[in-house]
Amino acid sequence: MTLKLYCFGESGHSYKAALALELARLDWEPVFVDFFAGETRAAAYRETVNEMGEAPVLVDAGGLRLSQSGVIQQVVTELSGRFGGETPDEAREVLRWVLWDNHKLSSIAGMVRFQMNFLPEEKRDPAVIAFLQGRLQAALQILESHLAGRDWIVGRGPTNADLTCAGYLYYPEPFGFDRQAHPAIHDWLGRLSQLPGWKHPYDLMTPAHPEVRKIYQKEAVSK
Amino acid sequence: MTLKLYCFGESGHSYKAALALELARLDWEPVFVDFFAGETRAAAYRETVNEMGEAPVLVDAGGLRLSQSGVIQQVVTELSGRFGGETPDEAREVLRWVLWDNHKLSSIAGMVRFQMNFLPEEKRDPAVIAFLQGRLQAALQILESHLAGRDWIVGRGPTNADLTCAGYLYYPEPFGFDRQAHPAIHDWLGRLSQLPGWKHPYDLMTPAHPEVRKIYQKEAVSK
Repeated sequence: MTLKLYCFGESGHSYKAALALELARLDWEPVFVDFFAGETRAAAYRETVNEMGEAPVLVDAGGLRLSQSGVIQQVVTELSGRFGGETPDEAREVLRWVLWDNHKLSSIAGMVRFQMNFLPEEKRDPAVIAFLQGRLQAALQILESHLAGRDWIVGRGPTNADLTCAGYLYYPEPFGFDRQAHPAIHDWLGRLSQLPGWKHPYDLMTPAHPEVRKIYQKEAVSK
Repeated sequence: MTLKLYCFGESGHSYKAALALELARLDWEPVFVDFFAGETRAAAYRETVNEMGEAPVLVDAGGLRLSQSGVIQQVVTELSGRFGGETPDEAREVLRWVLWDNHKLSSIAGMVRFQMNFLPEEKRDPAVIAFLQGRLQAALQILESHLAGRDWIVGRGPTNADLTCAGYLYYPEPFGFDRQAHPAIHDWLGRLSQLPGWKHPYDLMTPAHPEVRKIYQKEAVSK
């Protein structure tokens, strides 16, 4: 059974799902979503892929479609037994961090990175960027404090808590995250990137923005 | 076993958890969090209640502490058998909407309501409010489309998907949500409010803002 993941390189939410699939060694393939050409906003996408107009979306061989990276991560855990935590208490902690990340970290990181890099320059608003930066730095500080003296966010090994919180933190475009200013996060990202099968977002999924494709010399096709 | 919920009236995230506890008829009591006096930002709260500095937090008789409303809702489902969906597929759909809400709806509604009502006027920024309004209206439109022709978000009855998405939508303070402009959401909020045990946020939890307490004639104590 080959799982298909609708995704594109710049989407940290897609990366969380793609990285879980890849690290768990599941049989999957990316389906390129042409985000910057408006594909997710088009009626066809909303009607046939995802009513929420989002990527990622996972489709299994039976045609079941699932969106929200946290749900896809949970499916990866069900299929592979990986990344769900070792006990029911750990599973609950994992869900807590997945929700926190979607609520406070990745959601804000995604918005501010878009504002600072992908929105046309004349539409960027310094007040909005400053507001989002304030929220982002507060969230990063909570993660930094939690990781100080710990290898992984929950328990003794990597879980979906790590995969979700790292979703936007490997991207090269500037969005207000400085690894050097967050030594515990820096070390943890290093540990995560040494897991067998780890790949950088732009090696796992095709970038959708023409400029990003040019810089990283990627073709606009599914692998 | 009495469950304790750290919460305050203005917190829609607290409301999602409190409403689930109340509708499920679990034995629980609120612990008032003096949010506007800075309680959640203080070191004592971060160290003894919640490192994320958030409300709500659920504490059980054994001292187990859980934060993030989506986790607390899941515990309510485990304890009561309510609101989790009827099948594994429905359970996954419920989680999808819980994540979507935390990511796209309640997170934005919470920020823009704070900006428009509780932030000192001299600190409010029209550009930030306009940005958040744009995100809020897009999320409301997705919910409105989904609810057209349906009674509940997932399956045949109320689930955590409904309780999470409704988290901010009963509040009286203006934040850009107009029930009349969203007829399917309006009808669904009406259905939800007719469930046995339903209470308005300010009847379920004590407001923390002095002005709100004055308007609704509430005392600053736990019930």
